[in-house]
Amino acid sequence: MFENANSRTELGEMGEFGLIRHISSSITCKNPDTIKGIGDDCAVINRGDHYELVTTDMLLEGIHFDLSYCPLKHLGYKSVMVNLSDIYAMNGKPTHIVVSLGLSNRISLEAVEELYEGMHLACERHGIDLIGGDTSSSLSGLVINITAIGKTTEKRISYRNGAQVNDIICASGDLGAAFIGLQILDREKKIFLENPKIQPDLTGADYVVERQLKPEARKDVIDALDNLGIIPTSMIDISDGLASELFHICDSSAKGCRIYEEKIPIDVETARIAEELNLNPTLAAMNGGEDYELLFTIRQSDYEKARELSGIHFIGHITSAEAGLALVDKSDHETPLKAQGWDGLRGT
Amino acid sequence: MFENANSRTELGEMGEFGLIRHISSSITCKNPDTIKGIGDDCAVINRGDHYELVTTDMLLEGIHFDLSYCPLKHLGYKSVMVNLSDIYAMNGKPTHIVVSLGLSNRISLEAVEELYEGMHLACERHGIDLIGGDTSSSLSGLVINITAIGKTTEKRISYRNGAQVNDIICASGDLGAAFIGLQILDREKKIFLENPKIQPDLTGADYVVERQLKPEARKDVIDALDNLGIIPTSMIDISDGLASELFHICDSSAKGCRIYEEKIPIDVETARIAEELNLNPTLAAMNGGEDYELLFTIRQSDYEKARELSGIHFIGHITSAEAGLALVDKSDHETPLKAQGWDGLRGT
Repeated sequence: MFENANSRTELGEMGEFGLIRHISSSITCKNPDTIKGIGDDCAVINRGDHYELVTTDMLLEGIHFDLSYCPLKHLGYKSVMVNLSDIYAMNGKPTHIVVSLGLSNRISLEAVEELYEGMHLACERHGIDLIGGDTSSSLSGLVINITAIGKTTEKRISYRNGAQVNDIICASGDLGAAFIGLQILDREKKIFLENPKIQPDLTGADYVVERQLKPEARKDVIDALDNLGIIPTSMIDISDGLASELFHICDSSAKGCRIYEEKIPIDVETARIAEELNLNPTLAAMNGGEDYELLFTIRQSDYEKARELSGIHFIGHITSAEAGLALVDKSDHETPLKAQGWDGLRGT
Repeated sequence: MFENANSRTELGEMGEFGLIRHISSSITCKNPDTIKGIGDDCAVINRGDHYELVTTDMLLEGIHFDLSYCPLKHLGYKSVMVNLSDIYAMNGKPTHIVVSLGLSNRISLEAVEELYEGMHLACERHGIDLIGGDTSSSLSGLVINITAIGKTTEKRISYRNGAQVNDIICASGDLGAAFIGLQILDREKKIFLENPKIQPDLTGADYVVERQLKPEARKDVIDALDNLGIIPTSMIDISDGLASELFHICDSSAKGCRIYEEKIPIDVETARIAEELNLNPTLAAMNGGEDYELLFTIRQSDYEKARELSGIHFIGHITSAEAGLALVDKSDHETPLKAQGWDGLRGT
C-alpha cells in the first residue's frame, strides 16, 4: 500500500503488439464454446447454429482524436465504424453494440447528443442496435469504449491465419488518405493556434479530411463477396497501415508475401497532398493507418469472379515464409517490408 | 470547426440517471433478436435456445479508484466482478469477457501484469474466459473497460420490472461495508499525505477495506436460487446503494415498497466503524453503494423455500405504486425513501 513496485519495465519499450503478445501468453480459454480468443480482429464464440463475433475498441481524447478539429457527430460515427470494421474483417455481419462513455466536465449535454447522433447514424446505416452502455464522469478527457457483437458461420468465417502460397492479396478502396487527412488537420490546427483569426483552409482536401474524420466500414465489400460466393482465405482490416496488417496475416499464416508498389491503390488527392507535404504516398499507404479498408487473400481459382468486384485491388500474392515479406517497385527491385504501423503505446 | 456550440446544458445538473434516460429516449432497437436494450443490468439478445446477456462498465482512475491505495491485482479482480455482478443480477451465468485498457506512462509492464493477475483470478473463480480486448496509451490516468457476456433462458431471466404487490424483498450479504471501507482508506491516505512517515492503520477494518477493494459477485446466490427452483420476480445488483436500487425496481415495476430498518443487514464491523466516523450505518447501507450484493423480490409462495438460503435477508415487501417507497423504523415510523445513490456525474 502506498508504494511502487521495485522492478519496472516501460511499456513504451514493448510497443502495443509486444504487450498484447506478452499478455496473451498467460491466457488460456477453458469454455468449450470459445473458438478463438485474443489474436484476431474478433473473438469467436460457438453458438451452435452460428459463430458469434465480439470486438472492443477504446478511443481516448488526445490519443485517438483531437476535439479541436473532430466534430462530435463524426467522432460518434467513427467510434462505431472502427468496431464494425473488425466484425466485417472476420467475414461477419455486426448486429449489436454497447457503448461506455467517460465524460469530462468540458462536455455538455448538447455535445453528448451530437456524439450519439453520429452513433445512431452509423447504427442505422449498418442495421445494428445500440443495446446498452455505461456513462461516467472522467477527470481528464473524453473516453469512448464500444464493444460490437456480430455473427458469421463456421463455413464463412475468415481468420488471419488461412492464407496459402499463391493466394492473391486484395485491398479494398484506397490507402493512406486518412493519414494525409490527419497531417492537413494538424497543420491547420497549428496555424489556427498561432493566429486564431486565420480560418482553417481545407480547400481541395475534402476527401482526405473525410477519410480521417468519418471512415466507412466496408459492409459493401462483405456483401459483394457473399453474393459472388467468395470466402477470403484470410482477412484483416487496415487500421494500422498496410505493412502492419500484412505482417499480421503472414505471421498468423506462417507465410511471406510480395506486394507490387504500383498496384497499391492511392487516391489522386492523397498523392497530390502527400507530395505537397513532402511525404511519400507509398509510405503513407504502407504505414499511415486508419483506412478501415479490408485486406484479404483469395484463391487463384476465385480470381476471375473477384475481378467483377468494383474497387478491389489485387496488390500481390502470398509466398512461402522463407521468401519473407517484400515490396516490389516498378524496376522489380525488392525492399523487405518493415512493420511501422501506428502504435498507440509509443512515445507517450 | 474550432468552435463551441452556443447552447450548453451542464451534465452535472442532470446526473447519471437523468443523462441515461435522456439518451435512451432517442434509441429504438430494430433487430428482432434484441429482447432488451438500455434500462436493465444487461442487454438481452435472443439466441434461439438461450438468451444472451451483455453488460459493460468503465472504471476511470480518480473517479472509480485511487491507485495510491488500490492494489492493481485487486483492481483487476474488482473490474471483472462489477461486470459479473450485472450478469448474475439478470439470473444469468457469465461466460466471456473482453477487456480494454488505457494505460498512462506511469504504468509499467509489471503493473499491467498485476492487473491481469487479478482479472485471471476472477475469471478462474467464475469459470469464464477472457477472449479479447484493446490496449492503448492514455494521456491521463488508467482506464479499464470490461464487457461481459453471459447466458440465461427466457424462463429463468429476472428483469427489474417484474415485482408484484406483496412480493418479499430480499438482499444478500450485508450492506454499507464497501462505503465505510472507502472512508477508512480516504482517512488513512490523508494522514499519509500529511506525514508520509506514518504507516496506514487499518487495524480492525479488514472486512470493510476488503469489501471496498475486492468485492465478490454473488454467483453462489444465483446457484442456490437455481438449486431451490426459485426464480426472482425482479432483481438488480446493489452498486449504487440500496435506496437507488429500490427506486429502479419500483420505477420499472410501477410499484412501491416498505423496507424495515431493523432488517437491513449491516455487519458489526461496519456498524462500529460507522459510529466511530460519526456516520449513520443505515444511511451507509441505503446510499453507500459498491456492495455488489443482489437485491431481489420473490413470491410469498417461495418464502418457505427461500428461508433455507443462508445469508439472504428479508428486508421488506412490495406495495402498490400509490403507497410510495418508505423506510419503516423500529417505532413503526415511516420515512419516504430518497434515491441519493452515488452518482458518477455529480460534482465534477
